[in-house]
Amino acid sequence: MEGHLPDAPLPGPIAISLGDPAGIGPEVIAKTWSLRVQEQLPPFFVVGDMAAIRAVWDGPLERIHNPSDAADMFDHALPCLQVAEAGEIIPGSPTLDGARCAFQSLECATGLVRAESASALVTGPVSKAQLAQAGFTHPGQTEFVAERCGVSRENVVMMLAGPGLRVVPLTIHIPFMQVPQMLTASLIRSRAIATVRGLKRFFGIERPRLAMAGLNPHAGEGGLLGKEETTLIEPALHALREDGIDISGPFSADGMFTPRARATYDAALCCYHDQALIPIKTLCFDEGVNITLGLPIVRTSPDHGTAFPLAGHDQADPGAMIAAIRMARDAEICRRAQAELA
Amino acid sequence: MEGHLPDAPLPGPIAISLGDPAGIGPEVIAKTWSLRVQEQLPPFFVVGDMAAIRAVWDGPLERIHNPSDAADMFDHALPCLQVAEAGEIIPGSPTLDGARCAFQSLECATGLVRAESASALVTGPVSKAQLAQAGFTHPGQTEFVAERCGVSRENVVMMLAGPGLRVVPLTIHIPFMQVPQMLTASLIRSRAIATVRGLKRFFGIERPRLAMAGLNPHAGEGGLLGKEETTLIEPALHALREDGIDISGPFSADGMFTPRARATYDAALCCYHDQALIPIKTLCFDEGVNITLGLPIVRTSPDHGTAFPLAGHDQADPGAMIAAIRMARDAEICRRAQAELA
Repeated sequence: MEGHLPDAPLPGPIAISLGDPAGIGPEVIAKTWSLRVQEQLPPFFVVGDMAAIRAVWDGPLERIHNPSDAADMFDHALPCLQVAEAGEIIPGSPTLDGARCAFQSLECATGLVRAESASALVTGPVSKAQLAQAGFTHPGQTEFVAERCGVSRENVVMMLAGPGLRVVPLTIHIPFMQVPQMLTASLIRSRAIATVRGLKRFFGIERPRLAMAGLNPHAGEGGLLGKEETTLIEPALHALREDGIDISGPFSADGMFTPRARATYDAALCCYHDQALIPIKTLCFDEGVNITLGLPIVRTSPDHGTAFPLAGHDQADPGAMIAAIRMARDAEICRRAQAELA
Repeated sequence: MEGHLPDAPLPGPIAISLGDPAGIGPEVIAKTWSLRVQEQLPPFFVVGDMAAIRAVWDGPLERIHNPSDAADMFDHALPCLQVAEAGEIIPGSPTLDGARCAFQSLECATGLVRAESASALVTGPVSKAQLAQAGFTHPGQTEFVAERCGVSRENVVMMLAGPGLRVVPLTIHIPFMQVPQMLTASLIRSRAIATVRGLKRFFGIERPRLAMAGLNPHAGEGGLLGKEETTLIEPALHALREDGIDISGPFSADGMFTPRARATYDAALCCYHDQALIPIKTLCFDEGVNITLGLPIVRTSPDHGTAFPLAGHDQADPGAMIAAIRMARDAEICRRAQAELA
């Protein structure tokens, strides 16, 4: 994996949405602030309910009213923009009030980044089931942010990135059985093009190299173990190559994630959720970051869930949140540099 | 992963079938012999065509006529039982004569282990397509060995094992689309029972702990992302637990292979090929071993293919062959100790 990072500070702080107040979001955000010096993190502030952080952390926490106050505050306290009351908070026990707080926190943090009051968006982990009960009608945070940015959800790409590996699942939260019918030539095409654009824009990779996984074992072994490679994937890749996209494959997915194989591409396109997420979580569990490509803003997220059973036990690892903030900073610096060049 | 290894030598040498003479089999076998002292390997001999080894290696190679001669010979030369002529050998260019040689080598090595002339069987990599052309009617070497051992192929289990992880794919070389219909309660049951038996017998684990992966993303998320977990897998696991099998799950497959998760089970049962092979190859590419459970003999194999494009370039890594020989030795020592106890 190649990557080029211009050296320039961000003009504003990073906004972090709290996530579900009963999950591990508040804890990992607070722990991340505690490590700000040693991890050399840029200024950030949390959007949500101060009480949710207070429930799991007794470090310095201060309320801000403007994102622009975050930078000065950041050295001596975790800045918090109070946007909602989560009600009584019992870590590990999600509530409807908590879900509403998560929703408002996401909404406000997204708006602040859209308004350029904050430089980039990092979203804390939410519970989809809880959010749905609170009237959230989007499949996930990614689709919500896309809508608020005026981008069709077909044109945004979820990429998971960790040290030494970036993966893009072409289909995500659908049943296994529906994968073959949802995997289409136009999906492969649009995701590949958006991934190339995202790698250039957010990672500064001039000529991104993509690798595509096959759907079947051994990438179909010439048709013996499935036909999708020959009837669908190969023609789609051929068409992309004709348009100048550097994409190799389809490869037998089990051989794509060895150290030697990983060195040959900048991102792996995978046919379905587990094909992409097994290798990234196996390799980079504590540092995996979800970054959304195709948006006008930078949005990242730690690649873990609310982990309700872990909440309130002071055992959550802030590694992925730290990595998400770093990636948001680096991607936004890259994006600005590219925009200036354009 | 727990494991207990009694300390006793093997009564006879290990038999290694050559694999396809044009693949990397001959090279990794020869390199493994060269490392016998430093890797503390037990005596072994190769069954096949000496010319195939000579084509890629100029170290000491000697013909034996009886497996019992291998141990004395082993210190100063690689012992070879000549069973077939592979014809002209061009590394990287498989031929029909070569496939016939691979077939006869497998047949003879299996017979010698069945006859207790050799202690355990390690099979070199073959090309299924080439073997089929040479009249081999089995889907793979595993099914062939099962038949020769008088065991139905339904009762043998392919397990992939590497440092810190063992996985069992419940379905293997079938198209992705067919996985949901091939995954049945009886398959889960028979594979789980055979895996428990194999872990006791070959690995000396007294109370094996299994973990089962879900088929759908997030193991179906309570039915939102697929029904197989609630309708099929959960009832199957429940029934196994009632029979005293320690099996947990179904788990979201992407979270099952982190270091913390791996520490909680002795083997992971996976629904399909890539779900099992992606994590093992990602973690243990150079040391992955395929071991067949459910046979009266020990049979292992390095977890790589013929790698024809690599053959003849002196670049093949013998790590997996070394690991396969070690695992065969350890499993056979365990098997003997268990048999004595019984």
